[in-house]
Amino acid sequence: MSILEGRPRTALLVVDVQNDVVAGAPRRDEVVAAIDTLVARAREAGAPVIWVQHSDDGLPRDTPGWEYVPELVRADDEPLVHKTYGDSFEATELEQLLAEAQVGRVVVTGAQSDFCIRSTLHGALVRGYDVTLVGDAHTTEDLTQWGAPAPEQVVAHTNLLWSGQRAPGRTAAVVSSAEVDFGTAPASS
Amino acid sequence: MSILEGRPRTALLVVDVQNDVVAGAPRRDEVVAAIDTLVARAREAGAPVIWVQHSDDGLPRDTPGWEYVPELVRADDEPLVHKTYGDSFEATELEQLLAEAQVGRVVVTGAQSDFCIRSTLHGALVRGYDVTLVGDAHTTEDLTQWGAPAPEQVVAHTNLLWSGQRAPGRTAAVVSSAEVDFGTAPASS
Repeated sequence: MSILEGRPRTALLVVDVQNDVVAGAPRRDEVVAAIDTLVARAREAGAPVIWVQHSDDGLPRDTPGWEYVPELVRADDEPLVHKTYGDSFEATELEQLLAEAQVGRVVVTGAQSDFCIRSTLHGALVRGYDVTLVGDAHTTEDLTQWGAPAPEQVVAHTNLLWSGQRAPGRTAAVVSSAEVDFGTAPASS
Repeated sequence: MSILEGRPRTALLVVDVQNDVVAGAPRRDEVVAAIDTLVARAREAGAPVIWVQHSDDGLPRDTPGWEYVPELVRADDEPLVHKTYGDSFEATELEQLLAEAQVGRVVVTGAQSDFCIRSTLHGALVRGYDVTLVGDAHTTEDLTQWGAPAPEQVVAHTNLLWSGQRAPGRTAAVVSSAEVDFGTAPASS
């Protein structure tokens, strides 16, 4: 029920699951495994899988920390979007890729929960997409020394907030990885 | 330096400072006082002040809890935007009001930090605005029983995240209420 016309399909977004981004994040291995399973299920369902990879001064391109975690392997025909801002739609071809693939709903996974994930969730919703966050398939690093809550709390808080998010004509939802449906929009928001 | 053309002005947004929204919020009185001072300064500077007021099933219109706190008094010529979603731009005339007033930068204050404030921050940035959050002029309620961090942590976390936010052609910033400049965009993001 996205407000975008002619967009019946769902895409899986895998955001910033790069070595240095998720190193030390709580439930790192479980989150990576959940995403790997979702990637396989999306491929089986014929849903586009779009990979997002961040770079900036603190995470330079073509360094080991910038590389995707070894457990997750992109297929050659799956798009890789290079971003330099928190919101995956900013200064990238993501919008165009989703439009070309007739995608009106994105299923969001990856890191970091409170920054690039949250920015991408809002970025997609404002741009008219239905936006499903997979509650057990995102994580963040420990930023408590800069005043952030503990990372486990950040993950739970992100899920709480997005499960209460609404927007006219679109659905915002949080589901577990086992519940993700790549075929249709969720029945309720 | 907003990407919106012909929008040299700054507006103050006062979001959801309603009786039931801020009752029991940490630093409730200090936040309300800071906003009151900012309203006076915006008026002196000739900057538009736009008031946003939320309603939904849990906060019905025309009830005492829905009313604005008594300390904050809207001038008759200042717009009041009634919203029913977290993002103040959704299904409201806010975008039109800002365009008519040639506003390209919004200074955001009010409640709740992690929900309507954060949604409005992203909503404005995605729509092309420069977005300044006033770090000591927003607050939230205690949602720890639903898994949220303590409200003081939510406020600090929101400030941390928005101070690290960037978008091409726009500025995202967190400033203290004493630092707010209603005349020009902030010098740096």
